[in-house]
Amino acid sequence: MDGNMAMGVETEAGQAHLQHLERVGKGAAIADVIFGLVGRSQFFAEFSREDISVLAGYMNVYRAQAGETIIRENDGGDFMLLIIEGAVDIFKKGAREEQQHMTNVGPGMTLGEMSMIDGEPRFATCVATEPTAFAVLHRDDMAKIILDHPSLGSKILVKLVSMLSSRLRQTSARLLQYMERGLV
Amino acid sequence: MDGNMAMGVETEAGQAHLQHLERVGKGAAIADVIFGLVGRSQFFAEFSREDISVLAGYMNVYRAQAGETIIRENDGGDFMLLIIEGAVDIFKKGAREEQQHMTNVGPGMTLGEMSMIDGEPRFATCVATEPTAFAVLHRDDMAKIILDHPSLGSKILVKLVSMLSSRLRQTSARLLQYMERGLV
Repeated sequence: MDGNMAMGVETEAGQAHLQHLERVGKGAAIADVIFGLVGRSQFFAEFSREDISVLAGYMNVYRAQAGETIIRENDGGDFMLLIIEGAVDIFKKGAREEQQHMTNVGPGMTLGEMSMIDGEPRFATCVATEPTAFAVLHRDDMAKIILDHPSLGSKILVKLVSMLSSRLRQTSARLLQYMERGLV
Repeated sequence: MDGNMAMGVETEAGQAHLQHLERVGKGAAIADVIFGLVGRSQFFAEFSREDISVLAGYMNVYRAQAGETIIRENDGGDFMLLIIEGAVDIFKKGAREEQQHMTNVGPGMTLGEMSMIDGEPRFATCVATEPTAFAVLHRDDMAKIILDHPSLGSKILVKLVSMLSSRLRQTSARLLQYMERGLV
């Protein structure tokens, strides 16, 4: 994959951000578990078993205890993650540096896709609220998938565009509501 | 491209939405014009001349007069567009059905990517504020690019993910500001 695609190789830096968490193993070993989540996961809803097996081979699985921070706002980090089991709170700092709780997400949800693709600092903080297992996909492994399995690569990218579109529609609609209240 | 990728063939319906506008011709004929926009366009910043020539071959160019509606909120429509020259106002309906002005965009900007990928109704209304030329890419042509030019297809998709991420970060940051004001 060429450097123009803004997906450089930053694995070591990316993995450094995960060093405080327990590494369970390669995703390939848990392809069955990931496949079991298909029914619950917006992300994998249209992926075949073979797609998931290939993708799982590029992922690593980690475990976080309740209260452990998985991603910290403004940190670097070039991976996205898929929650396999457990639950994660999402916080974002307000103007006075206080943590605002944005939402809570569970198995089948993905986090961190924006930084995986655009390399910008993390937008929010993600904290496990119970023992949580998640599969990690790094930017350079995403680039390898695009090169080695272009059809699967496109499928993942189409899914990411679709998910981001959905979040952008929701967020814009909420913003519009607040803007309107401001006009009353 | 397989149907699992949620990119069905809807060209006729999509083109019906453009019938009121003047069709200028195939994008291939204006590859040079599109290439000339590279410096101004966030979308094409990392595309080679060859990439743009191939992509332009899948696009059609239309012209709208000042005041003409290009995309209408809640309509169907399976294309995205790249503004070549002119300017476009973006409106979204509020709770009382009044049109709220969201922003104004010019040459090099893209519109309608969300519906091209996810097939959901248009999120906002786009009206030309001066004579405006734009290149249109339909969903089925995007699917053909992914099949016939997988490397270019991935590059476009990575760019879409990156642009949507950027908009989502901006929109979420604005929403957070409004949420905070609500807490004062």
